[in-house]
Amino acid sequence: MTMEHTVRAYDEELDALTAEVSRMGGLAEAELTDAVQAITRRNLTLAQAVISRDERLDEIESEIERRAIRLIALRQPVADDLRRTVAALKISTNLERCGDLAKNIAKRALVIAESDPITPVTRSIERMGELVASRLKDVLDAFAARDIERANAVWRRDHEIDEHYDSVFRELLTYMMADPRTINSSAHLLFVAKNLERIGDHATNIAEIIHYEVLGEHVTGRRPKLDSLER
Amino acid sequence: MTMEHTVRAYDEELDALTAEVSRMGGLAEAELTDAVQAITRRNLTLAQAVISRDERLDEIESEIERRAIRLIALRQPVADDLRRTVAALKISTNLERCGDLAKNIAKRALVIAESDPITPVTRSIERMGELVASRLKDVLDAFAARDIERANAVWRRDHEIDEHYDSVFRELLTYMMADPRTINSSAHLLFVAKNLERIGDHATNIAEIIHYEVLGEHVTGRRPKLDSLER
Repeated sequence: MTMEHTVRAYDEELDALTAEVSRMGGLAEAELTDAVQAITRRNLTLAQAVISRDERLDEIESEIERRAIRLIALRQPVADDLRRTVAALKISTNLERCGDLAKNIAKRALVIAESDPITPVTRSIERMGELVASRLKDVLDAFAARDIERANAVWRRDHEIDEHYDSVFRELLTYMMADPRTINSSAHLLFVAKNLERIGDHATNIAEIIHYEVLGEHVTGRRPKLDSLER
Repeated sequence: MTMEHTVRAYDEELDALTAEVSRMGGLAEAELTDAVQAITRRNLTLAQAVISRDERLDEIESEIERRAIRLIALRQPVADDLRRTVAALKISTNLERCGDLAKNIAKRALVIAESDPITPVTRSIERMGELVASRLKDVLDAFAARDIERANAVWRRDHEIDEHYDSVFRELLTYMMADPRTINSSAHLLFVAKNLERIGDHATNIAEIIHYEVLGEHVTGRRPKLDSLER
């Protein structure tokens, strides 16, 4: 085996790993969008589809882990390439959690569909879902293009999702206080909103991973989070 | 460098990595226990201590990751040793999440302390906290001793924590319906109970990681989870 041959095989493995992470990202995005639609349109078929597709994400995560570890052990990448391999490993862990959270939202869609809809809150959840989905999309584009500016933009705007969450939290508590019959649905919607906020946190984690991967240094400064105790 | 020397250095590095994970586990256990006490005893000083100590767990996780990746790249462990190294990496990720969840419980202790206590729920949270802490302790002991039986026992008993969670969830909803003034505190206690359940899930994840590490095969069968839609 010539030196050139080894290098080419190595680059191909690293490219394949990156492509697999992007594919996993696409699936996680679809899970999120469908889970939010299952809530807002009270669509039980969509909810069931999200729940059953989650296993696929778990499988891809295991496959990425297996490939990344093999690459590190056999090719002993250094600097840039090592950072890219570890980034793939860590991003896949974050995407797997996004899938879990979307699955949990879909499960709650099944329960909520049994009660009367709380239309204004549903609209707030829809807007929050769109915001989180756009952040996840942006950060996955940033990963594919190694675009540090786009990754940083996601990182800087994390607090916007927190603001939406705070507002949904307060809105739900108001409904619960005004009409005890909404308490059961509202409790589930509290968790739906929290799960969306956490998917947003994972997008921000991924932005930090990309920053480190591309520049070799950690993001400096605190995450611009809303750290209100109301939540 | 003689062959024997290399092997010894390698074993030492692997032992040091394992010890670091155990140390991290001890810290995560303390965070959990103190966070639950901050809630049940309405102790704000303890809550603040939990919040400020969380950063330490993040640092240890980064350090374990750095060491594990270096070990894989430089020593190219195979079979048993590779599995042990990857297990250290993955367990540290789970412990870091446990710390985050404990920190979140502590933050909610600060908010809840501003309202009147709901004593019966507090007792239920206390019992649930003790159960989760004992699972985390068991699984960390299982990791240190590579004790597959003890790890499997934690895995098999995951549903007990779910049952506690379901019962606390229903209890809280009952209080909210009976007295709207408890809604704000109860909403926070819902998340406290959920966070405890999630720490229990991480203990079960760790049990699965140990199973794979020691036996080289994945746990077969579904996790004996309560998958009720009530949650």
